[in-house]
Amino acid sequence: MLVRAFVPAHITAFFVPVFHDDPLKAGSLGAGINLDKGTNVFASIETGTLERHIHIAFNGEPVKREEAIISYSVAERLVPNDFLGEVEIWQYFDFPNGHGFGNSAGGALGTALALSYAFGGTWLKASQLAHEAEVKHKGGLGDVIAQLSGGIEVRVRAGGPGVGVVDNLFFEDYRVLVVPLGRLSTREVLDGDVVGAIEREGRLALERLLKDPRPERMMILAREFAEKTGLLSGELLELARQLDRVLSNPSSMIMLGRGLFALLREDEVENAINLLSDLDLPYDVTGIHEGRPKVGRWVG
Amino acid sequence: MLVRAFVPAHITAFFVPVFHDDPLKAGSLGAGINLDKGTNVFASIETGTLERHIHIAFNGEPVKREEAIISYSVAERLVPNDFLGEVEIWQYFDFPNGHGFGNSAGGALGTALALSYAFGGTWLKASQLAHEAEVKHKGGLGDVIAQLSGGIEVRVRAGGPGVGVVDNLFFEDYRVLVVPLGRLSTREVLDGDVVGAIEREGRLALERLLKDPRPERMMILAREFAEKTGLLSGELLELARQLDRVLSNPSSMIMLGRGLFALLREDEVENAINLLSDLDLPYDVTGIHEGRPKVGRWVG
Repeated sequence: MLVRAFVPAHITAFFVPVFHDDPLKAGSLGAGINLDKGTNVFASIETGTLERHIHIAFNGEPVKREEAIISYSVAERLVPNDFLGEVEIWQYFDFPNGHGFGNSAGGALGTALALSYAFGGTWLKASQLAHEAEVKHKGGLGDVIAQLSGGIEVRVRAGGPGVGVVDNLFFEDYRVLVVPLGRLSTREVLDGDVVGAIEREGRLALERLLKDPRPERMMILAREFAEKTGLLSGELLELARQLDRVLSNPSSMIMLGRGLFALLREDEVENAINLLSDLDLPYDVTGIHEGRPKVGRWVG
Repeated sequence: MLVRAFVPAHITAFFVPVFHDDPLKAGSLGAGINLDKGTNVFASIETGTLERHIHIAFNGEPVKREEAIISYSVAERLVPNDFLGEVEIWQYFDFPNGHGFGNSAGGALGTALALSYAFGGTWLKASQLAHEAEVKHKGGLGDVIAQLSGGIEVRVRAGGPGVGVVDNLFFEDYRVLVVPLGRLSTREVLDGDVVGAIEREGRLALERLLKDPRPERMMILAREFAEKTGLLSGELLELARQLDRVLSNPSSMIMLGRGLFALLREDEVENAINLLSDLDLPYDVTGIHEGRPKVGRWVG
């Protein structure tokens, strides 16, 4: 049996981390965008061996348990203890790991959905398991619930699935430009001095967005958040300013990766691409994924 | 400006009504199916008149305020008081009103989404408004939150959007057979003696479904609920038994309409259609609508 799950990449625009001993009550407030590229998980389940085996691969390469601790912990919970057979979980990422695209949550949620589909379970239980694994192993706080919601999302009450509350903005046809330039460790940022500024500026941005809940306003608030927290500075800020000259809405920083994103109107795509090509920088232009992740039996 | 919203028809399999003075805490527990037919709402917004006008039409026919009190109350809240112009809300229903397809909630939610898209707002606020109007004017308790969730849904915590919690079952490719035979007044049923049995059997069905959360199990529990509450009896029960002879999963009663529904495997569609054609009964075979309702600018 082969099951496929697709989970959108999720970019955070601004956020407030909310820590709690109960993983389902931990989460984040904030806003972000789900992309129509992301993580594809293929779960192959074959019975008939004498032992229970679980293997995970990233982009076609098998990974050790300690390098995929979040997805392994999800799989260990969902493959029944008395199952005799081979479970192979192939995760393919459209964006690089550690660059702020929610790959870790995408892998965890895709694994949880695919294995629950195969072995039994529900959407809510699968996503709660993925959220708990993310929180416990510090993959992220808000990606799972954001990815479940789709579209342009606003986390208005922190927490995992069934506890947190996510709102969605209405939007016209926008494309999303992403410029992934490098990694940024979420853990190092959240352990640093900047966390006070993140909490203050994040709450302010959320409050302001809910008074005027439009994607264009979200981009302005995201940029203010990125600059006021000091996370966006130096060369990256300079690049954001260059992008702004060819766009009608401000670009901002991907939280948390060394990278930028922006909403593009159809007639702005060419100028943005030309600028980034001239600068010889990596970029991608994608759509917005609306609605939930996908899961189903895969007929290659 | 023309905006279109699609809200799936929603069939309830079994339920427990939960009443509360705060409309957002009122709702229902239970399970049901969202169909890929339902309610299409077109909102036409034209400025330039000297007064603020709101008109609503059902299936092309203008309706009076008292005949569309739920949708009018939603529209009155969402069209700004200082708006000068004509707002026309055209609601088209794929299934007959009062037969248990969630048309009232579909019209309310579609109106709320379309007008929020046009005048400003968010998904959560629009759907809370639709839910509140449904509860206040006794259109229904659980349809709005069920329609927002899509697929085969299980309401595990009662309440409106942002308060209630909805889970979803995984399912393979099923078609849905519906046999709408007549109206049944939700209000009369809920004001009657049967409400005690509904509460008892509904809670039992939910508890059992969550232990074995599969659509096939849901149909068995729906049928037990329908028979044990006494809602399904007489000729309708006889028809359900006839249908069962050509299906692998039991049929059950649409809550609340005089009608039946069933999950059909691809190879069962023909037999079911033949049986109903022979009996000269109305029926429809539809797909399951996954994910959220749709809303966007309409370019005819």
